[in-house]
Amino acid sequence: MDVLNRLAAIVGPTNLLTADSDLEHYVTEERGLYRGEALAVARPADTEQVAAVVAACVQAGVAMVPQGGNTGLCGGGVPNQGAVVVSTERLNRIRAVDPLNFTLVAEAGCVLAAVQQAADQAGCLFPLSLGAEGSCRIGGNLSTNAGGVGVLRYGNTRDLALGLEVVLADGRVWNGLRSLRKDNTGYDLKHLFIGAEGTLGIITAASLKLFPKPREIATAFIALPDPAAGLAILGAARRASGDLVTACELVPRIGLDLGLAHVAGLRDPLDAPYPWYLLLELSSSRPSGLLPALEAILAQALEDGHALDAVLAQSGDQRKALWRIREGVPEAQKKEGGSIKHDVAVPVSRVPEMIETCTRAVEAAMPGVRVVAFGHMGDGNIHFNLTQPVGADKASFLDRWAEMNRIVHDIVAEMAGSVSAEHGIGQLKIAEMARYKQDVELDLMRAVKAALDPTGLMNPGKVLPPA
Amino acid sequence: MDVLNRLAAIVGPTNLLTADSDLEHYVTEERGLYRGEALAVARPADTEQVAAVVAACVQAGVAMVPQGGNTGLCGGGVPNQGAVVVSTERLNRIRAVDPLNFTLVAEAGCVLAAVQQAADQAGCLFPLSLGAEGSCRIGGNLSTNAGGVGVLRYGNTRDLALGLEVVLADGRVWNGLRSLRKDNTGYDLKHLFIGAEGTLGIITAASLKLFPKPREIATAFIALPDPAAGLAILGAARRASGDLVTACELVPRIGLDLGLAHVAGLRDPLDAPYPWYLLLELSSSRPSGLLPALEAILAQALEDGHALDAVLAQSGDQRKALWRIREGVPEAQKKEGGSIKHDVAVPVSRVPEMIETCTRAVEAAMPGVRVVAFGHMGDGNIHFNLTQPVGADKASFLDRWAEMNRIVHDIVAEMAGSVSAEHGIGQLKIAEMARYKQDVELDLMRAVKAALDPTGLMNPGKVLPPA
Repeated sequence: MDVLNRLAAIVGPTNLLTADSDLEHYVTEERGLYRGEALAVARPADTEQVAAVVAACVQAGVAMVPQGGNTGLCGGGVPNQGAVVVSTERLNRIRAVDPLNFTLVAEAGCVLAAVQQAADQAGCLFPLSLGAEGSCRIGGNLSTNAGGVGVLRYGNTRDLALGLEVVLADGRVWNGLRSLRKDNTGYDLKHLFIGAEGTLGIITAASLKLFPKPREIATAFIALPDPAAGLAILGAARRASGDLVTACELVPRIGLDLGLAHVAGLRDPLDAPYPWYLLLELSSSRPSGLLPALEAILAQALEDGHALDAVLAQSGDQRKALWRIREGVPEAQKKEGGSIKHDVAVPVSRVPEMIETCTRAVEAAMPGVRVVAFGHMGDGNIHFNLTQPVGADKASFLDRWAEMNRIVHDIVAEMAGSVSAEHGIGQLKIAEMARYKQDVELDLMRAVKAALDPTGLMNPGKVLPPA
Repeated sequence: MDVLNRLAAIVGPTNLLTADSDLEHYVTEERGLYRGEALAVARPADTEQVAAVVAACVQAGVAMVPQGGNTGLCGGGVPNQGAVVVSTERLNRIRAVDPLNFTLVAEAGCVLAAVQQAADQAGCLFPLSLGAEGSCRIGGNLSTNAGGVGVLRYGNTRDLALGLEVVLADGRVWNGLRSLRKDNTGYDLKHLFIGAEGTLGIITAASLKLFPKPREIATAFIALPDPAAGLAILGAARRASGDLVTACELVPRIGLDLGLAHVAGLRDPLDAPYPWYLLLELSSSRPSGLLPALEAILAQALEDGHALDAVLAQSGDQRKALWRIREGVPEAQKKEGGSIKHDVAVPVSRVPEMIETCTRAVEAAMPGVRVVAFGHMGDGNIHFNLTQPVGADKASFLDRWAEMNRIVHDIVAEMAGSVSAEHGIGQLKIAEMARYKQDVELDLMRAVKAALDPTGLMNPGKVLPPA
């Protein structure tokens, strides 16, 4: 086939994969939710090769699916039949580090952990941090506007990007790799490509913001009567800490219980069980008494009845142990049977109301369902996950995925929330886009898509529902 | 004329201005750089009226120019002949304040100071702050992505917006007024309208981020041997302060001298003259010894030779006096005769090189020219202004505006900088867009413009150069 020959000439025969066994890794989604089919996988070595690959595909009328670490949770990187996967994994150079400007320039295929490490070696922090950081790639983080545990303090991936290099849908290269804090010269194009999940072009490199490295961290695990108490503690902590709250994660009792049952080495750091917990962390690059500051915040919270008990990490190991409780929740849930997931956000002030309303609604619809609502309370993003009732059949439980989604998403939409806070749309949530987005917003998005990708060959079938 | 009758019916006859004397305020630019002509000024009372005004103008084929406080510095809000000015000044309600979510929703016509005040009354800070804050309006701040003195810590206006309500170019209303910290559901449309200077639609309201109010501020005025020393102090201060640097402003000796000559009550706080100065400010909502922290930073800087002398504000009045030095620079420059202005940005690490290279170049081209390079060193944005040579003729000096711009902007562009860091493009810098933007970037912007404003009636002739 002509296009395959052309692609092989561009990337070299060894970097054009066509054998089923070679494609396997690229067409399969980690959790098995999706399995795609691809004509080939092209592994360009640099931006120029990406541009040539895109031009060749456009000329042949072949669809393209950009792919980084293939760790996405919504199937955005899984190819449809007949498409060429454009893998960025060989674009893995750190092009520049500028500690005085607090920036670095990374190619799209850099693994997130490698970006963190390059920053660290320059005495700086790149604050994006999430579960998949050892295998996800920064181009994918940008394309999905990844969130993670540091959003409250440092923003989403979008907020960490100062400039982009992008191969456009027609194969031209836009060099928007500026490392400026201020630039008001026309429309901000980078924000179009960030979060577009590869439907408008292929991000090949980015200029990213760095920060001073934390030198003092104070972490507490706080027992709460209810989520509203956590909200009160968060507001007080932001003010009393000098806005140094880096993480504010909510964990329900059932989340801890499942962890105790399924995660090796996990233990309850408090003497009695409590209904809810808050993992609260402050950090600063200036040692300035954060531990006593956090103690004062907790003393006030105990006095106000917002905290029922609390423990402060007295060492790095203790801190890790507290974080294991939070990180153990999704891990333990997986071992407890079927899980129906929601990645929702509402205004931070409405998180307690959202959890309560959704809990009542799903329990009414499915008696015995176990609500495991946990996550990033500090930025309003709760993973409102449902574990199957004790003894239920996993398959029949999972059959009700769409029904449960509908119940939860309707409530969240009613509260002006988001039905995909940090995971994106991909193909998983296309129907939600059609249901919850205003027509005028979909029209705008379609107009942008048509303007930037007139042939429609850039990751077709993702993000936007058919008109 | 039919369209005027229709507009009068929409906004009420008293809010459709057509008399020359009534239009004067809306067609004149503050400094007299531009004088436009308008068919009328419509002053809608709410979003629905804005939408109806837009629909009526589109139907009549009449161009529209959105206008807030008319304080823009690039002529973006000045109408072209035959256009209707759509003034947002009656859209001046604070719709909601949510201190727990750290957000407020303001209509576009709210004066910036009123937004700051509403935040303050809720115990919060809205950090956008700039010279025109008593008269500029938040819709204009958003449309120009205004900068100001707090960008280093809090970002540009763009970074302070969580959601927008926009009347589109076809008169439909996009309600994107979400107050979410995380929302990954399709393309980020708000970033298209922010900074678009009203060429894609009319922003009618915005959801804005708030922060804890500072309760401790430490301010120093530091004598430097050169700008590079200021850069070293900034980097050290970011790390040593726990990233609490709120402002880092550069002032050259000539800036202070002009202030001493022209600004009432200004005095040199140091005992001897020095070539450069840095105004460095730390702030925090947690009293945590910022003054001793700043003293330690200065002691180290003195030891390293980066600082030659320094004074710390010991009271609010002393702090104001130090800020008057910085704020006095443009004020004093105006009184010293003609001034050719540049609002440029480069990576923070290259500010000293940029100042040096540009200074050499303009002095070579115009012997005796007085370079007054001052401003936001912390975010790389320097107001590289030129004061006329002593005794020169103002008019013939100003005749060389374009020539001087060319020299400075060529150097800045070569350094991957911005020729409009915080003021935008408007009509003043259209030619710079044509000269310095890559074709591919202009093509993308034109594609976006055509997609969102197909009739081209939204603020025509602004931002984008003719194709």
